[in-house]
Amino acid sequence: MKIVECVPNFSEGCRMDVVEQILGVIRSVEGVKILDSSSDGSHNRTVVTFVGEPQGVKEAAFLAVEKAMELIDMENHQGEHPRIGAADVIPFVPISGVTMDECVQLARELGQEIGEKLDIPVFLYEEAAVKAERKNLADVRRGEYEGLKESIKQLERCPDFGPAQMHPRAGATAVGVRPPLVAYNINLNTSDLEIAKAIAKTIRGSSGGYPSIKALGVLIEETNTAQVTINVCNFREVSLARVFETVKSEAERFDVSIAGSEIIGLVPMEALLDVASFYLRMDGFQHDQVLEVRVSQG
Amino acid sequence: MKIVECVPNFSEGCRMDVVEQILGVIRSVEGVKILDSSSDGSHNRTVVTFVGEPQGVKEAAFLAVEKAMELIDMENHQGEHPRIGAADVIPFVPISGVTMDECVQLARELGQEIGEKLDIPVFLYEEAAVKAERKNLADVRRGEYEGLKESIKQLERCPDFGPAQMHPRAGATAVGVRPPLVAYNINLNTSDLEIAKAIAKTIRGSSGGYPSIKALGVLIEETNTAQVTINVCNFREVSLARVFETVKSEAERFDVSIAGSEIIGLVPMEALLDVASFYLRMDGFQHDQVLEVRVSQG
Repeated sequence: MKIVECVPNFSEGCRMDVVEQILGVIRSVEGVKILDSSSDGSHNRTVVTFVGEPQGVKEAAFLAVEKAMELIDMENHQGEHPRIGAADVIPFVPISGVTMDECVQLARELGQEIGEKLDIPVFLYEEAAVKAERKNLADVRRGEYEGLKESIKQLERCPDFGPAQMHPRAGATAVGVRPPLVAYNINLNTSDLEIAKAIAKTIRGSSGGYPSIKALGVLIEETNTAQVTINVCNFREVSLARVFETVKSEAERFDVSIAGSEIIGLVPMEALLDVASFYLRMDGFQHDQVLEVRVSQG
Repeated sequence: MKIVECVPNFSEGCRMDVVEQILGVIRSVEGVKILDSSSDGSHNRTVVTFVGEPQGVKEAAFLAVEKAMELIDMENHQGEHPRIGAADVIPFVPISGVTMDECVQLARELGQEIGEKLDIPVFLYEEAAVKAERKNLADVRRGEYEGLKESIKQLERCPDFGPAQMHPRAGATAVGVRPPLVAYNINLNTSDLEIAKAIAKTIRGSSGGYPSIKALGVLIEETNTAQVTINVCNFREVSLARVFETVKSEAERFDVSIAGSEIIGLVPMEALLDVASFYLRMDGFQHDQVLEVRVSQG
C-alpha cells in the first residue's frame, strides 16, 4: 500500500468551529485518515496530520485549502507564527511504498490546481522547489502575508502557479515535500546539562554535525536526567542507529552511558527496520520480507 | 488489522491439478492471500502459507480440508513424510493484532466444524491441545494413517472432534496453534564448521540452550563460510537480538566474529521492532507508534 502523509498548517488556532469544518472536508475523502490536529491560540495556527493513498491525500489537501479560503480572512489575522496565507504551508511526506519524486509530482499537481481553480498564488518549496532559492521555506515566507502583498509583483517573488497577486482573503500557499521527521530523545546517565549540550552540538548540522540532524541539550526536571532531544529530519540519510551510536561514543568521552531512548509520536516502519538490519548486520534484508508489508501489497 | 497465518500441509505433492484446486478454494475467500505454496514429490506433500483476518482464514482452511477430502485418497497415498490424513495438519499462527488465545479459539471452532460437517476425526495439538499428551504433533501422528486406523478406537487415541474412526478416504486431521517461526541464519567469519556446530549446540534447546531455539552448524560451500542456521520458534520468548548476541559472545570465545545474518522468507514486523527497541534501549516503545500500524487500525 502506498502511504503519503500531509501536514498542512492553517492560519486559525482560536475558532474551533472553523478548524472542525476544515477537518470535516479532509475526513470526507475515502481512505484518508486524520492522525492528529493541534491548535495553538497564540500562534493562531492549526497543524493537521493526515495520511492515505497519494490521490486521496491530494484531494483532501485541495478541499482543505478551499475551505480555509472560504473561512479565514488574512486581512484580520494576527498570530506569532510567520505565515503568508490561510492555508499557509502544505508539506507532503513519503511514508511507505512512495518515492520522494512521486510526492514532488503530487505537490506540483496540487499547486497547479490551487493556482488555477482557486486563484491563490502557490510557491513550491523544499524538495518540490523548482527555483533553488525556494528550497528554504523561510525564504518563501519572507515579509509574511503583509510584505508579500507588495513583493509578489516583483519578478523574483513571482509564484510557481496562480496569479502574481495575493488572493484578497486567503493570501498565498506554499506547497512542498520533505522527508519524514522522527522526533527522537536520548537520555544520558547524568544530570549534567552541559554534557547533553556538548553532545547535541557535535551531532547537529548547524555546528558541523550531520546536516539533517537538529539537536539540543535539555534537563528533564522530573528525573533529573540530561537529555539530547533530536529531530532526525531524514532517517534515510542518517539512521536512528547512527544517531544513537554517535551520541553513545560522544558520551563515553565524558564517562557517561546512555540510559535509554524514546521516539515521540509516530515513526515510519522503515526507520526501525533499518535499525534492526544495522544491528543484526542483515545486509541483504528486503522490506517486503516483513509479513505485514507482503500482506498489504496488492 | 488482525492477521492470522495458516500453514496447512496436504498429502499430495505430485498431482499439481489437485494442488491447484485446493489453492483455488483458499483464494476464493475474500481478504485471504496465499503467500507461498511448496510441493515436494518424494514427500508427496504440499505446504501452503496463507494469511488474512481470523474468520476468513478459518473459512479458507475449512474449504481446503473439504476439497482435500474430495480429491485425495489416503488408501493410495505413499510418501516419505509422516501423515495421518489428506489435510494432514492445519496450524494457525498469530501474526498481528491477534492473541494466541484467539487463535486457539479459532482452531477449536475449525476442528469442531471439520468433525461435525465432514465426519473427519480431528486432533488438537500444540497450543490448541486439550489433552497434554497431544502438545507434541509427533505423538498425535504416531503410527501414521495406517496405524491410526486401528488405534483410534482406543480411548487414549479418541479424537477431540468427529467420529472415533478414520474417514474412509481422508483419514484424520490435526489442527493446532503455534507461535510464528523465524528462519534465521548467522554467518561466522570462519570456515571452521566445528565452531558453528559448537555454537549451535550451546543455543539450541535440545542440548540445554533456549527451549524455543533449534539450531545446526553448517558450511556454506559457495563462500566457504561456517553458518549457524536457526529456527527461532517463539521470538516473543527469545528475541532475534538475544539469539544474535548469544551467538556473538559464544563466537568470541573462539576468536571469531560475526560476518552477517539473514532472515529466510518472511518475518512478522513485531520481531524486528523488538530488535530495534532492544538496541536503542527504548523501554517505553509502543508498536502503535509505527505509522503503518496506526494507519491499519480501524
